[in-house]
Amino acid sequence: MIFKYAFGRPFKTDAVIKSFPLVNSLPDYIEMSQDKKSFTAKLGVDDIIYGLGESVRGINKRGFRYISNCTDDFSHTEDKSSLYAAHNFFVVDGEETYGIYVDFPGKVYFDFGYTDLDTLTVSVEEANYELYVVEGDNVMDIIKKFREIIGQSYVAPKWAFGYQQSRWSYNTADEVREIVRGYRDNHIPIDAVYLDIDYMDNYKDFTVSEKAFPDFKNFVSEMKDNNIHLVPIIDAAVKKERGYDVYEEGAAKDYFCKDEDGNDFVTAVWPGKSLLPDFLNEKVRDWFGMKYKRLIDMGIDGFWNDMNEPALFYSEKNLKKTMEELKKYVGKDLSLQELWDFKDLVNGLANSPSDYRSFYHNFNGEKVCHERVHNLYGYFMTRAAAEAFRIIEPDKKVLMFSRASYIGMHRYAGIWTGDNSSWWSHIELIMHQLPNMNMCGFMYVGADTGGFNNNATEDLLMRFTELSMFTPLMRNHAALGTRPQEFFRYKNIKTFRNLVTLRYGMIPYLYSEYLKSVKFNTLMFTPLGIAFPEDRICRHIEDQLMVGENIMIAPVYKQNTFGRYVYLPEDMTMIRFRSLEDRDVVPLRKGHHYINVALHEVLVFVRKDKFFFTGKAIQSTAELENNEYTFYCADGYKGEYELFTEIYKSERIHN
Amino acid sequence: MIFKYAFGRPFKTDAVIKSFPLVNSLPDYIEMSQDKKSFTAKLGVDDIIYGLGESVRGINKRGFRYISNCTDDFSHTEDKSSLYAAHNFFVVDGEETYGIYVDFPGKVYFDFGYTDLDTLTVSVEEANYELYVVEGDNVMDIIKKFREIIGQSYVAPKWAFGYQQSRWSYNTADEVREIVRGYRDNHIPIDAVYLDIDYMDNYKDFTVSEKAFPDFKNFVSEMKDNNIHLVPIIDAAVKKERGYDVYEEGAAKDYFCKDEDGNDFVTAVWPGKSLLPDFLNEKVRDWFGMKYKRLIDMGIDGFWNDMNEPALFYSEKNLKKTMEELKKYVGKDLSLQELWDFKDLVNGLANSPSDYRSFYHNFNGEKVCHERVHNLYGYFMTRAAAEAFRIIEPDKKVLMFSRASYIGMHRYAGIWTGDNSSWWSHIELIMHQLPNMNMCGFMYVGADTGGFNNNATEDLLMRFTELSMFTPLMRNHAALGTRPQEFFRYKNIKTFRNLVTLRYGMIPYLYSEYLKSVKFNTLMFTPLGIAFPEDRICRHIEDQLMVGENIMIAPVYKQNTFGRYVYLPEDMTMIRFRSLEDRDVVPLRKGHHYINVALHEVLVFVRKDKFFFTGKAIQSTAELENNEYTFYCADGYKGEYELFTEIYKSERIHN
Repeated sequence: MIFKYAFGRPFKTDAVIKSFPLVNSLPDYIEMSQDKKSFTAKLGVDDIIYGLGESVRGINKRGFRYISNCTDDFSHTEDKSSLYAAHNFFVVDGEETYGIYVDFPGKVYFDFGYTDLDTLTVSVEEANYELYVVEGDNVMDIIKKFREIIGQSYVAPKWAFGYQQSRWSYNTADEVREIVRGYRDNHIPIDAVYLDIDYMDNYKDFTVSEKAFPDFKNFVSEMKDNNIHLVPIIDAAVKKERGYDVYEEGAAKDYFCKDEDGNDFVTAVWPGKSLLPDFLNEKVRDWFGMKYKRLIDMGIDGFWNDMNEPALFYSEKNLKKTMEELKKYVGKDLSLQELWDFKDLVNGLANSPSDYRSFYHNFNGEKVCHERVHNLYGYFMTRAAAEAFRIIEPDKKVLMFSRASYIGMHRYAGIWTGDNSSWWSHIELIMHQLPNMNMCGFMYVGADTGGFNNNATEDLLMRFTELSMFTPLMRNHAALGTRPQEFFRYKNIKTFRNLVTLRYGMIPYLYSEYLKSVKFNTLMFTPLGIAFPEDRICRHIEDQLMVGENIMIAPVYKQNTFGRYVYLPEDMTMIRFRSLEDRDVVPLRKGHHYINVALHEVLVFVRKDKFFFTGKAIQSTAELENNEYTFYCADGYKGEYELFTEIYKSERIHN
Repeated sequence: MIFKYAFGRPFKTDAVIKSFPLVNSLPDYIEMSQDKKSFTAKLGVDDIIYGLGESVRGINKRGFRYISNCTDDFSHTEDKSSLYAAHNFFVVDGEETYGIYVDFPGKVYFDFGYTDLDTLTVSVEEANYELYVVEGDNVMDIIKKFREIIGQSYVAPKWAFGYQQSRWSYNTADEVREIVRGYRDNHIPIDAVYLDIDYMDNYKDFTVSEKAFPDFKNFVSEMKDNNIHLVPIIDAAVKKERGYDVYEEGAAKDYFCKDEDGNDFVTAVWPGKSLLPDFLNEKVRDWFGMKYKRLIDMGIDGFWNDMNEPALFYSEKNLKKTMEELKKYVGKDLSLQELWDFKDLVNGLANSPSDYRSFYHNFNGEKVCHERVHNLYGYFMTRAAAEAFRIIEPDKKVLMFSRASYIGMHRYAGIWTGDNSSWWSHIELIMHQLPNMNMCGFMYVGADTGGFNNNATEDLLMRFTELSMFTPLMRNHAALGTRPQEFFRYKNIKTFRNLVTLRYGMIPYLYSEYLKSVKFNTLMFTPLGIAFPEDRICRHIEDQLMVGENIMIAPVYKQNTFGRYVYLPEDMTMIRFRSLEDRDVVPLRKGHHYINVALHEVLVFVRKDKFFFTGKAIQSTAELENNEYTFYCADGYKGEYELFTEIYKSERIHN
């Protein structure tokens, strides 16, 4: 059962697409405050809280406080309350089991046993929101029910399950060619190369630098002939430059966000002075979305939308004020307090809360302060693109994912987990984010393999890859100034070749399970506590995941460790892959195991009444053929598997 | 065997106190570069590198690069190459087993399989250093040999094993009284309360604010009557203020570091404009050390030396230059590049490398640029104090620990691990730092329990305490602006009472093992790989430690987890403490175990041919009596234990 409550004047976020009659009285286990701005519930000692999608810390979100407030913050440490996304759905699994969805696009605060270990408190910035309470037979049932009301998740094309290489930035066509050659010459499969911000002409959206990428259309086609998709980045803000048509059109039509006086709100991001398209306005979405056609017409079929929290390096007004305030510091012998104030002034320029309070949208005909609807911005940018794709390429699946997101956006695109780091703890973090993002509808997901910030050692990159090879988006990405992170730059190329080749062998299974999770509103990555609700041990396991219905993974995420503990909730068949062709198959009993895992090895655990299968070694998804599988299962087991190759197309295969 | 090599003109660091004849040819496994500035060695696949004392990442330091460069950096993430200390000793345990000590007080770079997984490279900023290669029967033997040549570690008084409460800051005597009352009223044992920077009169070293702490001497005595030691902080730099006698004296005697022109180098830290005593000058040490007498005369018997990397908020010259450069930004509409430059300018004020290059010491009569001897500064500050204590209080043990350190300082004081965070990963980090600090001679060690930065949840503080209750320094400390972190501020006071009472029950064992490790140059915290060199599984265990010779610990360091895997390298007796009096004793077999551990429980594993013992429940170390023990061991085991109560005093006890 789903109960819908509405307080005040909720914003129309289009997160939920199913309509419901409103209910008045809340269930007993929720206590609402007088002003309707917060509610609390008691937590039993063993209760788990799943959800909140992309955020830091564990699968179980308990014991911390989170704020839904899309934020461009590159340092994903344990103390961060907000990352790029705002995913306001969670499930309490315990003495009472229920799901909660808070549909409010401004700040929402989740105190999950932070102030008091045994109390959950949710506070909403204003008492204008919809609240959904989802009840069901168990956690999985609750998730399914929730996913049903928010609509079917975005389906990525199959090539988007190929290996993808990125860097900030490959600056020229020749650099891209060199990368592709590095992969093809070393026989490491690959399907896509990314174009980060420097492919553009002065960071202007929907332009391509003529100098760096002369005859871009031909270059795209040259790459396609080599089975490489180019995936350009699109930033949210539009450069303010006379003569730049996107700017001129947007300005002429009043399509940019306004300041309090009704003038265009001027911010600065990569292109310098920029304007924020008012994606909350349907007309602006129609207009901006169709701009993607320029790149699609050149053969592009994949995009990543970035900087759409929106990130602001500064606003024109705030910078001006700051530069004026500098006067009082010039030539001065600062006291310490003045020094702190001065530093705060300078460092407060970026993503300033006062800036977010100082511009406005035209949202369904109403002037709305950005702060109140902040978390919709990236979602509505991405929606703009997706809705245009349906017009531009109605019969084609376009790859798209976004940095900022809100539930609802899951119908239009995937997400990646933003600017993570080359930290071992971030391998572990992904494991925690994957199932929670899935619950919130985001199925095409992945993290920057090897880590974006900082330098990746070879062993880190291997272990990172050994997890991300199971995620829909398998992309290696690294920041400007960091150690080159392409697989072929390292010494043990053979290991990377084997790992990526193995990934390609698993694509038939992974893509099928991905499609099933979209179609049936299930999880592609399931915590053991949800998959085996009767097994108490499973409730605390946060470093193993079910991937689809047939297998479990238990990646190594510690450095200098060549083994780990694995808990099997039932008898399973372990495949120890050294490569797609070189592997051992070992039956293991239910229970605790310590298992050695060398740097080049990948373990897959097959469920007792299921089989696993891999295809042939190929160099890109263009070579995928859905036949000739190798099967893995318990001795003597015979079974059937419904293999989905498209969302409405499946075939039955038998081992 | 220890081989000593000298290149160029090494600095006299006094790290090694034993003299050796020089050797010329290096062992085969070390390849020295032509210019003597770097050397490499091959690493076998399974080789472990122990050492480097206080640094981030694992017990095994392999797979990263470190720089010895004492740094005030509060964010101890995995990517940090430098923390507060410079501990240039490490041991390779593998195909070749040997120890290396690089005695150079400037920057030393350790590439431990970072560039190439199988190669270790050490680079020294200049070819003026001593190199020690230590060979021995095994890792433990090598560590002992190294410790012998660097001299006996500092011995802390027994009361320093009591529980200690700190915060930045308890601002008045009444606030301190309130804290003490909070502990005493709740029957949570405690021995010390810390005075962070705000106890001083305007952050002037060796002053006490009359307003905040009127009649300080009486207050110290009032606290002593309540069995509370007050431990004030001493910062390295001296406020530049006319009339402040420490400044006036130092200036008159030319005791402060000089700039290139021979004028006093003016920096700023907490007191604002400040000068750096030239601790590398013996006369300055004699002078500064005797200043501690002012506080000792008021009854103080414990100190923590801080900001002695030295941390610099800015230098007068650099600030002036920066404030002049501001002119070009005032009122300007910055381009992005100008904005980055501007931000770099402002944020580059603190701990600027150019500042470290711009001041000088009088070191053994020579003018030496600070950068070349940077890592000696905190060490020689602390040495100054310790040498004075021997004159002021020859018969008394004074508690002292420092933030910055270099090997050699271990003879004078302990260290704490600086400004850590309320992160679960920092519980794990301490486990890794403890044995590595021990190897480098630092035996009185500990981390800020509950974490200094960020906010601690109750469960984090419990788990943190369940590790730090085994460390010599057991201090709870938290930063300005964070959630109050004293145990009695939380809901489950009973659990904290039980944990701290248990700690006090263990002090006889812990202090004895601490003294033994000092006396016999062993480790108080031993990695399992060193304790059980024949057991291959032990080599990769980084989340269990031997504490002294008789017990092993396996703390829980993950949130929302109520159990963990524990590997027993031999049959052991597990004690499950719910409190000092309420416990179960369970024999366990050698091998892998999954063990439940509730939030309020502490596990101690007793070695098969040893026993463990605890004393009575007490409220402070003043009540410690070395008798009436409870014994824990395998059924039927009868043994003897040499209990050290002082470094030269022991008695034999039997279970």
